[in-house]
Amino acid sequence: MNIVSTIQELRKEIRSFKQGNLTIGFVPTMGYLHEGHLKLLEEARKENDIVVLSIFVNPLQFGPNEDFDSYPRNAERDQKLAEQAGVDLIFTPPVTEMYPDEPAYTVIVKKRIDVLCGRSRKGHFDGVATVLTKLFNMVQPDKAYFGMKDAQQVAVIDGLISEFNFPIHLVAVPTIREEDGLAKSSRNVNLNDRERIEATALYKSLCEAKELILKGERSKQKVIELVTSIISTNTSGKIDYVEILNYPKLEEIEVLHGNIIIAVAVKFTNARLIDNITIEV
Amino acid sequence: MNIVSTIQELRKEIRSFKQGNLTIGFVPTMGYLHEGHLKLLEEARKENDIVVLSIFVNPLQFGPNEDFDSYPRNAERDQKLAEQAGVDLIFTPPVTEMYPDEPAYTVIVKKRIDVLCGRSRKGHFDGVATVLTKLFNMVQPDKAYFGMKDAQQVAVIDGLISEFNFPIHLVAVPTIREEDGLAKSSRNVNLNDRERIEATALYKSLCEAKELILKGERSKQKVIELVTSIISTNTSGKIDYVEILNYPKLEEIEVLHGNIIIAVAVKFTNARLIDNITIEV
Repeated sequence: MNIVSTIQELRKEIRSFKQGNLTIGFVPTMGYLHEGHLKLLEEARKENDIVVLSIFVNPLQFGPNEDFDSYPRNAERDQKLAEQAGVDLIFTPPVTEMYPDEPAYTVIVKKRIDVLCGRSRKGHFDGVATVLTKLFNMVQPDKAYFGMKDAQQVAVIDGLISEFNFPIHLVAVPTIREEDGLAKSSRNVNLNDRERIEATALYKSLCEAKELILKGERSKQKVIELVTSIISTNTSGKIDYVEILNYPKLEEIEVLHGNIIIAVAVKFTNARLIDNITIEV
Repeated sequence: MNIVSTIQELRKEIRSFKQGNLTIGFVPTMGYLHEGHLKLLEEARKENDIVVLSIFVNPLQFGPNEDFDSYPRNAERDQKLAEQAGVDLIFTPPVTEMYPDEPAYTVIVKKRIDVLCGRSRKGHFDGVATVLTKLFNMVQPDKAYFGMKDAQQVAVIDGLISEFNFPIHLVAVPTIREEDGLAKSSRNVNLNDRERIEATALYKSLCEAKELILKGERSKQKVIELVTSIISTNTSGKIDYVEILNYPKLEEIEVLHGNIIIAVAVKFTNARLIDNITIEV
């Protein structure tokens, strides 16, 4: 495994991969790898000759009151996990390498953003789209891997690749879950014992919603009521949102039809959890 | 020569070039080819295995009061000229192919725009940067060719390629001139006989400015006065601007130092002419 921190070194590696006609799978991350990332790396390892992992905490996607400075970092641990996962090349640039000056060019995202978690994170997806435009051009991957746990991010990147015509195939990797269904997240450790048990209600509510729809229910309102009721009855958490939208366009719908997403966010004492499922109606 | 109008057909061609390890030179245009474009194609022909020409009048870079609808188009003539110039592939998509929906992702340019011609064309370079991001991703060229006649456009694209890390080498092709020095332009035919003679003063003023600087003058103001005086003494045109900036950053400077551009725009009765020179001081 090779580790580079400059764009020049990265380009040299990528050029040699390309000359060898090797396919490149790319997993862009902000580091502090958890099982979700490892699943992405595993998929990338299966489907490509070369696996490139980027680790970069991107200041552009943090709001002024968000936790850029305190975002967890652990380069040594990440490198060990990456090596075990069969990564060929880690790109881990400092901020000055990615943004030597105040950015003069940024990507602005106008759709798919004023819903779900994006509603409270103005400009977040502009930062995501801008850094990915840069990384895609540097790494020139055949495939890029993202987790469906953050379904809105997948939808926004799907749109970016499609509208900007990147010659890249996006692979959306299904959410990994604990045995009781809870979506894996580094935030789960911040739940207390009672909340940890309650939290299984999120995925349960999504599964019951799916069953209701498969039985023929087509009213968005009815399904939202079911999900809301299951979560509020079974948890002490505060519901941030329960939303049903079409997917991946993330537009409002009234009648359930086509590919849809049911997504929830619930605030517990020290952890805000999200989960979602997509269904082809 | 092959002519395609869909992204799918274009990608198929590009893939086969890439598989053959052929280098690609790209000349993006809005069509209605003139000698300036032919010079770009000539340079591209010399330096690459494959020459790709795109012809697309990009609505995104026209302001609401600009001439998108009346912009001249002549596909048949363009194809003949391209064939003569040794073009391998023309990509000439309809608007619906480039923008099937209202764009949800656009590139915003924040620097190098509030000077020269950009001052009066708000949003113009956002449209240029957005369409080029798309075209670069489709064509995946090794080199892209632009004319120094529009030096601000070259500067903006130079920044786009550099900041977004496109693996593309920008080739800035020097302005072609008539024997008497007038920069070639399709607008020159709109000059009356007297104006056509007067118009040589634009390039003359730039050459004299260069000479003054080479002799040791370092005051921006003195050089601007010289250029202004030569143009206003020798033409009936109305000066739109005479500007000296650093290049390619296009920032204001007071003392002449480093790489600079001297640029002028002059309005004649039925034609607004621009010209520029860059000098390493």
